[in-house]
Amino acid sequence: MITRMLTGIKSTGTPHLGNILSIVIPSIKMANVRPKDTSFIFIADLHSLIELENIKNIKDSIYKIVATWMAFGLDIDNCIFYRQSDVTEVTELAWYLSCFFSYKRLKLAHAFKSKKNNTVNVGLFYYPILMASDILLYDAEIIPVGKDQIQHIEISRKIANFFNRKINKKLFVLPNPFFKKHTMYINGIDGEKMSKSRNNFIDIFSSSEVLKKNIMKIRTDNKSFKDKKNPKTDYIIYLYKLISTFDEVRNMEKKYILGKYGYMEAKKKLYNHILYKFKFEREKFKFYMKNTNLLDKILNLGAKKAKIIARKKLNIIRKYLNFNSLF
Amino acid sequence: MITRMLTGIKSTGTPHLGNILSIVIPSIKMANVRPKDTSFIFIADLHSLIELENIKNIKDSIYKIVATWMAFGLDIDNCIFYRQSDVTEVTELAWYLSCFFSYKRLKLAHAFKSKKNNTVNVGLFYYPILMASDILLYDAEIIPVGKDQIQHIEISRKIANFFNRKINKKLFVLPNPFFKKHTMYINGIDGEKMSKSRNNFIDIFSSSEVLKKNIMKIRTDNKSFKDKKNPKTDYIIYLYKLISTFDEVRNMEKKYILGKYGYMEAKKKLYNHILYKFKFEREKFKFYMKNTNLLDKILNLGAKKAKIIARKKLNIIRKYLNFNSLF
Repeated sequence: MITRMLTGIKSTGTPHLGNILSIVIPSIKMANVRPKDTSFIFIADLHSLIELENIKNIKDSIYKIVATWMAFGLDIDNCIFYRQSDVTEVTELAWYLSCFFSYKRLKLAHAFKSKKNNTVNVGLFYYPILMASDILLYDAEIIPVGKDQIQHIEISRKIANFFNRKINKKLFVLPNPFFKKHTMYINGIDGEKMSKSRNNFIDIFSSSEVLKKNIMKIRTDNKSFKDKKNPKTDYIIYLYKLISTFDEVRNMEKKYILGKYGYMEAKKKLYNHILYKFKFEREKFKFYMKNTNLLDKILNLGAKKAKIIARKKLNIIRKYLNFNSLF
Repeated sequence: MITRMLTGIKSTGTPHLGNILSIVIPSIKMANVRPKDTSFIFIADLHSLIELENIKNIKDSIYKIVATWMAFGLDIDNCIFYRQSDVTEVTELAWYLSCFFSYKRLKLAHAFKSKKNNTVNVGLFYYPILMASDILLYDAEIIPVGKDQIQHIEISRKIANFFNRKINKKLFVLPNPFFKKHTMYINGIDGEKMSKSRNNFIDIFSSSEVLKKNIMKIRTDNKSFKDKKNPKTDYIIYLYKLISTFDEVRNMEKKYILGKYGYMEAKKKLYNHILYKFKFEREKFKFYMKNTNLLDKILNLGAKKAKIIARKKLNIIRKYLNFNSLF
């Protein structure tokens, strides 16, 4: 069997520049050149229930996510791109897996441990099991992750191992974390890690007015046009660098050092560059968001493909548990 | 909507005399006279996974359970009799419910608390959520239970309540525990509560040889035939009483008191009475166990009926969570 790759996307809000550069673009590059139907990319909307306030915006968020991936050129005929809640066979496997993993060990999971003293729901505690199910249901071996996710892969491996030993059969593939070169934290307009919760992100799909306002908020010191500036500590140049060529950046840096460039000018340049650089993607995004029936069709197609694979695997698992085939 | 009743059966081994008298017969009496398709009786084989050693005997155990209920006259056209693992929509709802219940509260569940210091799997911790899902998925309001199960109904009510308040809609019916008159603990051949784990049970479906051996093992003191005996402390009379008429029992008691009856004679009488009393049921049981394809058909029929109801309900729930309809 050709090695399968699987990656999940949180279903909260529009993907921002940080998500796009660190996840969307590198994942699409990978998925589009891998053998057909060996890349699984899913929107983890079942997971998003852990925070109940996500429910109300979930549809809009999912459309924006799908539109983003389509805008950046994901080849949906080559991969399996689906909404997790459309293939809920995963919750069935999760129950099975939960009987193969120690309660004490699950208590050591980071996300749970870090919130121990607050009001935590059972879902938050249980969700690494659901995540293991996401992976093991599709025999995924390559799991592109950030460092904060290694523990989840470890849990999945442990369950898979224990299950396999118990039934004396290599039923589950052992997944491996895969660290992408491109997996980097991208900082936002305040120099901290770009994130929705910090509200320091750049939404390249927002209207030009909103985008401009957003760019204008990039934090700087109070040097004037003629002051000499240090490009290494400047957040505007940092962001510009992420999406520009070496020469373009070099040029701006020189002017900074010589005191021949103001922050306002740099922000305008960044703003214009985003509009120019992502012109095509912005248009495609807008198109898809006006034609959400297309997005539904895309997700349906993915769900159908995923469901066939999921049910086939689940039937094999059920055989070992002495259950009937799925109806 | 007519009130629905739901009851679950553990899928371990053959139902013994204690199970039959306290659960099978009273449940059948109830189910057979209730309005059509308002009684849900299911074999909780997903729950049985919590103890992994149950996997190997699960098929045999399920056949024996179904054969028992059929032997005692369950009208499967009037109720919905199904195997839990055939309707795994319940695991999907369980995930949703888990996001609506506090981790801290679930830690207070008895079954989990009592085993706290041993190696417990996540399934054991999570299973009251799965049980809540069993109930809420079918809008069941009447849940016949023993006292040890009240807490589970309480948890189901709490989740249902919180969910309903959160979406501002009476989506889930609040279940109520229902204490059957017949819910009593039946003691076994050693005078302790009859149970599989104590191995003190009477299997009325075993061969006459095995049954005889079993009856002969009933614990007594060492009084001889002519000694006067106290019928109130005798386990043979206790068991005889459960399945005989007032006059028959009275007769035996008198002889005991007068020293005109031996334990061996009493045991033989009990043995013969079981064979006589359950003659028809034993024959039916044997017939079904030789025709397990019939048992499969019975479970299939139940699963189909249950699945339609489960999926309909799940689609309503999914609407409130902003998920698509089930594929």
